[in-house]
Amino acid sequence: MLRLASVSRPEWIGTALSDMDAVLLDHAHCEKKAASAALNLIFRYQYRSALMLPLSTLAREELRHFEQVLGIINARGGEFERQEPSTYGARLHRVIRKEEPKRFIDTMICCAFIEARSCERMKLLAENLQDEALVSLYSGLLQSEARHHQTYLDLAATASPQAEVYARVEEIAQHEAAVIAVAGDQVRLHS
Amino acid sequence: MLRLASVSRPEWIGTALSDMDAVLLDHAHCEKKAASAALNLIFRYQYRSALMLPLSTLAREELRHFEQVLGIINARGGEFERQEPSTYGARLHRVIRKEEPKRFIDTMICCAFIEARSCERMKLLAENLQDEALVSLYSGLLQSEARHHQTYLDLAATASPQAEVYARVEEIAQHEAAVIAVAGDQVRLHS
Repeated sequence: MLRLASVSRPEWIGTALSDMDAVLLDHAHCEKKAASAALNLIFRYQYRSALMLPLSTLAREELRHFEQVLGIINARGGEFERQEPSTYGARLHRVIRKEEPKRFIDTMICCAFIEARSCERMKLLAENLQDEALVSLYSGLLQSEARHHQTYLDLAATASPQAEVYARVEEIAQHEAAVIAVAGDQVRLHS
Repeated sequence: MLRLASVSRPEWIGTALSDMDAVLLDHAHCEKKAASAALNLIFRYQYRSALMLPLSTLAREELRHFEQVLGIINARGGEFERQEPSTYGARLHRVIRKEEPKRFIDTMICCAFIEARSCERMKLLAENLQDEALVSLYSGLLQSEARHHQTYLDLAATASPQAEVYARVEEIAQHEAAVIAVAGDQVRLHS
């Protein structure tokens, strides 16, 4: 699915369903971080003017999803608050090479894989949840995640020949599969 | 206007009209920075859950304006690129006290004044420009700036009695007037 080299560990979905409040809070933080990541790329790569419009549109969508998840947390009687994140993002980003334009390409591909893994996990949630509000949330969002996955790969290909980008996608897919295979102690979207 | 303690120096509008390409590029950067500032506040004050929804909505609006200004820059044959900012923001922020919750209140009030000064300058642009596309841009945006000004003051008042907030507004209005009175060398929205 979406160039991922692995499916989720079978036990992940059961753990997630056992604590949907933790998953939703993590999900809100993830949407906020996704918006912030896109906006940081706008600042870092302001000399790549072709990135500005797609990244700004993407950041707005992530913020809209953040607001949508906040609404569900509140409707369930919860409140947005601090939460220890999973180590997935930090471990994934270790694959990013330091020199430009490799740094740019790897960063875009990592963003693409975060979207892909979110999509895979949201599909599992949509298929296994009973709560109608949550099924509706995740069925809707997984389509955006798939779209964002492709946006990031298209943006990577603005800086390098497409064949090179997709060779690197294969390598980072293996790395991502190794990163997600390690179970964390907490119940999170990417644990 | 919007609690500002001064009007713009009379020569500012003429200088701005003489180099609208520089003003528009600066304006695009300002919208991007405004979105980033709101998102940074979401991260810094995530324990103030009442801030999340209004700041996320505001950040989305700023990004929408960023995209709108990018469209106008491109339509005029220009391109988004790096630009030296005016020193207005950095000088304004020196008034922010270090300890919480004073830091929070002062930050919100500074954000409110940046919106207010933008509104005052956009009104001058809308009244003095000939170009219909630009008149339409600035007439539309100045209303959002006025709305955002009030949003920031309302958010400040979630952390402190309203009378205290408005006493500090008076002080920071004087500081802002001193900051904007100093003409910069460059043609900018807040020069």
